[in-house]
Amino acid sequence: MPHISLPPSLPGIRSLAVYRPETGKYLYELVQLLLRGASPLSEADRELIATYVSYLNNCQFCYQSHAAAARCLYGNQEKLVDEVLKDPATASISPKLKTLLRIAGKVQQLGKEVLPEDIDAARKAGANDRDIHDTVLIAATFCMFNRYVDGLGTTTSEDVSDYITMGERMSTIGYVLPNQPL
Amino acid sequence: MPHISLPPSLPGIRSLAVYRPETGKYLYELVQLLLRGASPLSEADRELIATYVSYLNNCQFCYQSHAAAARCLYGNQEKLVDEVLKDPATASISPKLKTLLRIAGKVQQLGKEVLPEDIDAARKAGANDRDIHDTVLIAATFCMFNRYVDGLGTTTSEDVSDYITMGERMSTIGYVLPNQPL
Repeated sequence: MPHISLPPSLPGIRSLAVYRPETGKYLYELVQLLLRGASPLSEADRELIATYVSYLNNCQFCYQSHAAAARCLYGNQEKLVDEVLKDPATASISPKLKTLLRIAGKVQQLGKEVLPEDIDAARKAGANDRDIHDTVLIAATFCMFNRYVDGLGTTTSEDVSDYITMGERMSTIGYVLPNQPL
Repeated sequence: MPHISLPPSLPGIRSLAVYRPETGKYLYELVQLLLRGASPLSEADRELIATYVSYLNNCQFCYQSHAAAARCLYGNQEKLVDEVLKDPATASISPKLKTLLRIAGKVQQLGKEVLPEDIDAARKAGANDRDIHDTVLIAATFCMFNRYVDGLGTTTSEDVSDYITMGERMSTIGYVLPNQPL
């Protein structure tokens, strides 16, 4: 049960955005820009970073919904998502994406954990400033969302099909503030 | 030295907002609303929550600048800030604010660390849904800012007077996107 009175028909961040639309507006605009706006990283790779950080933070709602969105965006490479969650180092992804996921994992711990050698490894694998910036900001942003969603005890579905529906919506229409009265 | 090429004359989040104003805009609007917009919590108490979380995350830039802002806003009670950083349980603050700082400290660890008994203690001390919501979202948001600022190795001043200037600006004009070319 949520720690505060939230709309019962909505799960996770959606219930919080309806509870407090003034902040929800900025949070949705931020995530839409980060995951769907201009970036050298593909939308699928950005969803993968969001999924990986949410998984490390043990946020079931965020991890399962973004994993579903990443699987949709990767199309016939959807198995990559589970390979990465098992171990990014052995997943069938590019060396560059491996170095960026390593940086994202460091950000999940704490900002100061990102060391010059992590950045050097990413650059050697072809990452530029924007790849590194977007990786760090996406990872940091999901450290916020995960804490907001779980810190208020929002509803998390146990039904896998709910996340498939969410992933389809997120991968097609993106992040749109729920328009639902309390 | 920052991990990516940032404007050298600006420290911390300000350099990142100028590097990428599209995301900086939402981040500044969010923090302005959270720390200066409508809330049952005073501006000083909200700055204190931001300071405490940034201190726990060992983010020198965020912790020192928000501590300076909180000291300005508390006026002749400015010593509260250092008392809280030493130990919120023994600081000269209300029982309600102690319970909210306890929740903020749990959010700093991970969302799921916030337990029903933490919420019950806050309610017994007089906190309502919005007090709890705003505390959790401020704490979660600073877990993002701290990681963004430190994860990209932004410049942190060692000069205490720089933070006094920042705190005065933050406590008077609030959070305004720096308007400075790269």
